[in-house]
Amino acid sequence: MASDAALEVLGWQDDHIVALDQTALPHEIRMLHLTTVADLVDAITRLAIRGAPVLAAAGALGVALAARLAQRDGWDPAQLDAVVKQLAEARPTAVNLRRETEAVAAMLPQGPDAVTAAALAIVRDTVTASHRMSERGARYLRDICGPAPLRVETHCNTGSLTCLGWGTALGVIRALNNDDALAHVLVDQTRPLLQGALLTCWELGQLAIEHYLVPDAAGPFLISQGLVDAVVVGADRVAAIIDVANKIGTYGLALAAQRAHVPFLVVVPESTIDPGTPEGSRITVERRAEDEVTHVLGVPAAPDGTRALNYAFDITPAELITAVVTEDRVIEPQKSRK
Amino acid sequence: MASDAALEVLGWQDDHIVALDQTALPHEIRMLHLTTVADLVDAITRLAIRGAPVLAAAGALGVALAARLAQRDGWDPAQLDAVVKQLAEARPTAVNLRRETEAVAAMLPQGPDAVTAAALAIVRDTVTASHRMSERGARYLRDICGPAPLRVETHCNTGSLTCLGWGTALGVIRALNNDDALAHVLVDQTRPLLQGALLTCWELGQLAIEHYLVPDAAGPFLISQGLVDAVVVGADRVAAIIDVANKIGTYGLALAAQRAHVPFLVVVPESTIDPGTPEGSRITVERRAEDEVTHVLGVPAAPDGTRALNYAFDITPAELITAVVTEDRVIEPQKSRK
Repeated sequence: MASDAALEVLGWQDDHIVALDQTALPHEIRMLHLTTVADLVDAITRLAIRGAPVLAAAGALGVALAARLAQRDGWDPAQLDAVVKQLAEARPTAVNLRRETEAVAAMLPQGPDAVTAAALAIVRDTVTASHRMSERGARYLRDICGPAPLRVETHCNTGSLTCLGWGTALGVIRALNNDDALAHVLVDQTRPLLQGALLTCWELGQLAIEHYLVPDAAGPFLISQGLVDAVVVGADRVAAIIDVANKIGTYGLALAAQRAHVPFLVVVPESTIDPGTPEGSRITVERRAEDEVTHVLGVPAAPDGTRALNYAFDITPAELITAVVTEDRVIEPQKSRK
Repeated sequence: MASDAALEVLGWQDDHIVALDQTALPHEIRMLHLTTVADLVDAITRLAIRGAPVLAAAGALGVALAARLAQRDGWDPAQLDAVVKQLAEARPTAVNLRRETEAVAAMLPQGPDAVTAAALAIVRDTVTASHRMSERGARYLRDICGPAPLRVETHCNTGSLTCLGWGTALGVIRALNNDDALAHVLVDQTRPLLQGALLTCWELGQLAIEHYLVPDAAGPFLISQGLVDAVVVGADRVAAIIDVANKIGTYGLALAAQRAHVPFLVVVPESTIDPGTPEGSRITVERRAEDEVTHVLGVPAAPDGTRALNYAFDITPAELITAVVTEDRVIEPQKSRK
């Protein structure tokens, strides 16, 4: 029922959700068959399903699943509400998950079929939006950077795995490559969970795009040395004044990019911009388990008993951002202020 | 023959060098017995011996070792010169290693006993210098930060393991703790080789100093959120205008500290300041093996065949540095410019 592009990472099969387990990549292509909302919440919590647009689509499909289970098993309305609430809150920083979950939940009175159709339409629209923001972002970068092929640094994973289409930031990189406007990509490892090293390198390898892995801490230095023409990242939430919450490590890249006069581009679906969040300081930054930091790939990487601070995101203020690109527009926070 | 404090990590025993293998920590206390200069060069290259002041002392002891072997085995002068040159160049960015190696090598005509005595004096002086810079740095921070116990962020490993005494940056932290002026320490993991996670956490644990491990990429964000009162790091080389070469990741912390008006302190022995290097752009930044980045603790952490860029150091310009503290003085680059 879902589009082909969507089926690679997230789709609807018969009466349940099918999702690619992103924690098994790049070593294994493992599909999860999620037949309960608890399964789905678990997959979201352990990052098997991740990335703002995929989380939004997963929230929508999750409500469809809940509606069907409620009908089949005769849940009372309070039970259904509780399940939907649990889903909406599975990742506190992911505003898209909450919003799409709540939007589709508003259709629950129309019955499971209407809810399922609405959820599948969200999946299709996500793919289309990805292509549009990718091409708009590539055009924007070529306009401001000139004709030489670009050396682009990116952080975390923002490709097909997170977005059901070409991705957000990685979609822009793919569009640049299609236009012969890309030299190569510098991929941050993205500690603690290594999504850059494990997922972005895998996707770029599949696309035969030249890329080099770099330690997160190297990004600011590479930018300062003239080795980067543009920094392109996604985001988990964009506040009304265009402060950006994204994977921890984004802020340091933005500081270095501003100092070196290197464009810093944030690529997101419109749904990631949250008018209800006036500014970055109002975003609650999720703290995750300490053992993600004290262990690497499950191997102890610190003395026994070491404590850790594990903030999942950081906040980059609007004044460090050259532009936010969506499927509909380019927002240049500096210019809008003038 | 060497002082007790030195024997923990580097010393002279009978006719050879004894060194703690820092790559085996924190899981094992393994002592290396280095009976040839090739053994010593190998230990330096694979970071079993590391940290600017220890490398300087190792260079000095290495020349003593070479002098004794040359006498015993009847090397010709060209052979001895070649061995000393190989030692001086074992870590290209480490100016102290080269300088102390060459300084002690100048005494070779006086014979092995004089060379050995000079090398051991360098070891003793290193310990004394460490205590002096530690106490001076702590006093400086208390003067500019006020009386509340400080939350200090540090990068890489700069303690007894690298300095034969209390260390450089970690020596300042230890001195603050002795004065009841330390709240806790935030320790960067320090990718790719995790010296912060493996070594600094181990040392702080031994000293019972409260500490939390953080991903490198989190440092700038923690600073921006008011969670850090001072950043304190060591350095591998300080240029004449006080640009600083230190472990990759230092530059991003300095950018964030400046923006947040948080003091950024660099603690080094005088010997790390290199008047022969006018500014940071003249420092050749060592590039190390790609598999340090594509693997973590020996475990593959990227798809097979992934390429990587692995710069060992970055350069922090003087204008981002509040002060450089040595055993002899405090240099405030901003104030000296005025």
